[in-house]
Amino acid sequence: MKIKAKTAISPTRTEDYSEWYQQVVNASDLAERSPVRGCMVIKPWGYALWENIVRELDDMFKETGVKNAYFPLFIPLSFFEKEAEHVEGFAKECAVVTHHRLEKMPGKGLVPAGPLQEPLVVRPTSETIIGDSFSKWIDSYRDLPLLINQWGNVVRWEMRTRIFLRTSEFLWQEGHTAHATADEAIERTRLMLDVYAGLVEKSLAIPVIRGSKTASERFPGAVDTLCIEAMMQDKRALQAGTSHFLGQNFSKASNIVFQAADEKEEYAWTTSWGTSTRLIGALIMTHGDDDGIIIPPKVAPSQVVLLPIFRKPKDRAKVMEFTEGLSRELKSLRYGSGKLKVEIDDRDTGGARGWDWVKKGIPLRVEIGPRDIADNAVYVGRRDRGHKERESIKRDRFVREITRMLDEIQKTLFERAASFKNNNTVAIDDRNAFYQFFTPNNQEKPEIHGGFVLSQWCGSAACELKTKNDLGVTIRCVPFDKKTERGKCVCCGETGNGRVVFAKAY
Amino acid sequence: MKIKAKTAISPTRTEDYSEWYQQVVNASDLAERSPVRGCMVIKPWGYALWENIVRELDDMFKETGVKNAYFPLFIPLSFFEKEAEHVEGFAKECAVVTHHRLEKMPGKGLVPAGPLQEPLVVRPTSETIIGDSFSKWIDSYRDLPLLINQWGNVVRWEMRTRIFLRTSEFLWQEGHTAHATADEAIERTRLMLDVYAGLVEKSLAIPVIRGSKTASERFPGAVDTLCIEAMMQDKRALQAGTSHFLGQNFSKASNIVFQAADEKEEYAWTTSWGTSTRLIGALIMTHGDDDGIIIPPKVAPSQVVLLPIFRKPKDRAKVMEFTEGLSRELKSLRYGSGKLKVEIDDRDTGGARGWDWVKKGIPLRVEIGPRDIADNAVYVGRRDRGHKERESIKRDRFVREITRMLDEIQKTLFERAASFKNNNTVAIDDRNAFYQFFTPNNQEKPEIHGGFVLSQWCGSAACELKTKNDLGVTIRCVPFDKKTERGKCVCCGETGNGRVVFAKAY
Repeated sequence: MKIKAKTAISPTRTEDYSEWYQQVVNASDLAERSPVRGCMVIKPWGYALWENIVRELDDMFKETGVKNAYFPLFIPLSFFEKEAEHVEGFAKECAVVTHHRLEKMPGKGLVPAGPLQEPLVVRPTSETIIGDSFSKWIDSYRDLPLLINQWGNVVRWEMRTRIFLRTSEFLWQEGHTAHATADEAIERTRLMLDVYAGLVEKSLAIPVIRGSKTASERFPGAVDTLCIEAMMQDKRALQAGTSHFLGQNFSKASNIVFQAADEKEEYAWTTSWGTSTRLIGALIMTHGDDDGIIIPPKVAPSQVVLLPIFRKPKDRAKVMEFTEGLSRELKSLRYGSGKLKVEIDDRDTGGARGWDWVKKGIPLRVEIGPRDIADNAVYVGRRDRGHKERESIKRDRFVREITRMLDEIQKTLFERAASFKNNNTVAIDDRNAFYQFFTPNNQEKPEIHGGFVLSQWCGSAACELKTKNDLGVTIRCVPFDKKTERGKCVCCGETGNGRVVFAKAY
Repeated sequence: MKIKAKTAISPTRTEDYSEWYQQVVNASDLAERSPVRGCMVIKPWGYALWENIVRELDDMFKETGVKNAYFPLFIPLSFFEKEAEHVEGFAKECAVVTHHRLEKMPGKGLVPAGPLQEPLVVRPTSETIIGDSFSKWIDSYRDLPLLINQWGNVVRWEMRTRIFLRTSEFLWQEGHTAHATADEAIERTRLMLDVYAGLVEKSLAIPVIRGSKTASERFPGAVDTLCIEAMMQDKRALQAGTSHFLGQNFSKASNIVFQAADEKEEYAWTTSWGTSTRLIGALIMTHGDDDGIIIPPKVAPSQVVLLPIFRKPKDRAKVMEFTEGLSRELKSLRYGSGKLKVEIDDRDTGGARGWDWVKKGIPLRVEIGPRDIADNAVYVGRRDRGHKERESIKRDRFVREITRMLDEIQKTLFERAASFKNNNTVAIDDRNAFYQFFTPNNQEKPEIHGGFVLSQWCGSAACELKTKNDLGVTIRCVPFDKKTERGKCVCCGETGNGRVVFAKAY
């Protein structure tokens, strides 16, 4: 029997990845299950992380000319039905409001009363209700492009839920734009995907593949769905953002017409694009280790925690003075687009305190005891390294180098994830090899399988369905940079249209 | 017959205040009615204003130690029922989710399907669902105080709605805190009211009266409700923020207990406090004139719009160059906690363009034509002055003085509103005079009545009800600074407990 190194999270990733995820989330203080089926409570540490993501994305949107607005939470059923594929895609997972008050019924307590003439769907996405506004706001080509974003909550009634990855209610943004030409709308679709890729790679330190979805994986009602796909540590794919070219489907459904320069009436070309709190799930599964989550410094609620240590009460004043002085100096430093954020945790909980911060994934932990102070030094642990690896650094050098250290952590996280993705991505041309790759070696750990496979595909839905049924593997995307290469479909042997990414997915 | 001065909004405030409000909102580009009953669409100009209010308030909350979090949109009926007064207060205006999918029914189209075992209420406020989390998060006095805020949407099914003032869905924040002692909770209740008063007076330039509500006007389930009350230009009161001391009512309902320092188990003392998009309604009705809204510079989406004028095409290049140079220089200036925000509107719509910005309430309009450029000057209109009053100012002086001008506008708006409030607030001791004050002089304009009346009140619900039934007048608040004065109740003649504010209200 092997003696296991102590880790904060049990089981480890290799023991049971799915259960590891639950435990890591529980230990992270980011979020928790709520008593409402499928809904989560986002705790302060998790919400601060989300706020940082929101702020960065919002700035990026605004730089491309997008403006925020807000539309109703409820969508009348008649609106929802306007686009046939759209309603088909969402009908199975809608929360439906049917009454507008509660009434006491003898023996039964409160019951719904005041039935609505027309049921209202709690928005799962807002194309149809925003389309209605667009139809009023747009008269002429001079009103185009119209570039709108909404931050809000949406509801998709999921039967099997997991915090951050799949919840009945989640927070997100949805962008909606209207254009005079198809080309311009297509360009915007791609631009917003690149904005997402920029955020996810640079701020969340998650490498992604950019590409387009196959017809069967498209957003209901879209002409084309672009996506960014990331690899989690169980080698599954996670879609981290989508951008849809909607053609004229929704403008026809909502009657978004404009008078062109030549005075003819035309339907506008629209796009929509979204990212959600799911990004936090991606962050956890990309960077987390067996001690818990690791938050990339650029989006961390705080970059550093100071942990004053005083076993003897008489040391307290001196240690706290040193700690608070250091905190003030660190807080005055610039980091990213704002200031460095610093926590002081002076709770008297012994070793549990340090472990709490490891599990919360803060980039730097700094212990400060009487001996460190005597040495004018601090004892620093980097979250991207093992929890035992800590280093004494002179106080002034630490202040001078902290932002460089944070940049190094950010870089390490990205590079580590990129290596993992590259090491687990293979090109396969042979059908047997393809099937073997996606067959788990060990039946006890069915979730650990091969990774991403780049294989030729003939373009038929039949081959897509076959790999899905046989292996639970889907085409995650047709990557932008692999389109021209030719070969034979890994499934049927017919002529392929270039390599696509096959994987199991969240 | 008098010749009327041309105004942008018809009717004027004195002609029909209620209709003026609707027309001002329509013309302002802030928001519009949606096809969903009682819900509004907040347009980009309105949402940017809301974002500024959010940012300021959020910073103020965080300075007092509050952290943001997010809780479910839906509240199970069984939670909602936990506090008797609370459910009583909200049962009549709840959107109720009863189904979780839609199904095709032959001949009927889509109908709600998948009935829920327990109906879900779309949150009208979140005391009960947040209380459930608090009961889990709090174990010991060391976990207190717990200071949480949520930004989000809520739904209260209103039968008669008006944009920003009363809508079925609105955006707001709700703070929820738990404390070890009643005193500490009471102190927090007052602190948050002061935060609201600070925002509303300093940023929205709306003077308020701080006080507490009478029992009949309290939040359902609260022990004490503090409020800030503002006077609109029709002399009605508008409640601009409330802060509730909930005692142990909700901690008993949600079982929020903690182990005190002496190891005894005790119920926590809780508070809640909220403000909403209603503040925008208050802003419109406080500052608007017969040309439209006037946005105080501190919360304006942009402080200044540049309007290049070129009647001859050959002038275009020169005028645009001057305009863009000025814009760059203005945008580099600091204003408030950020930079000055500048718009350029180069649409070729003649006089309509200038009027658009008057109606949008932007603090400064700057016309720039070839003659101004020849004179190295700009032609400036201040929104707090009549639309005809404009002034030629040397370009460099304008750049030097713009922030001072904005401060002056901010100050003027506050002072004007404060004078209006003071001029329309009277102390009345005589019952007949009281009744006469609240009887409109002119039956054709029933909405224009006396204003605020400071009168003695005996403290009985009967007198409160009588003035409400007779005059439609309620006690808006018992002001903090008027409590000790003695006299006789203006309604019944019994001993009063000090002057309270009587008014008609929104």
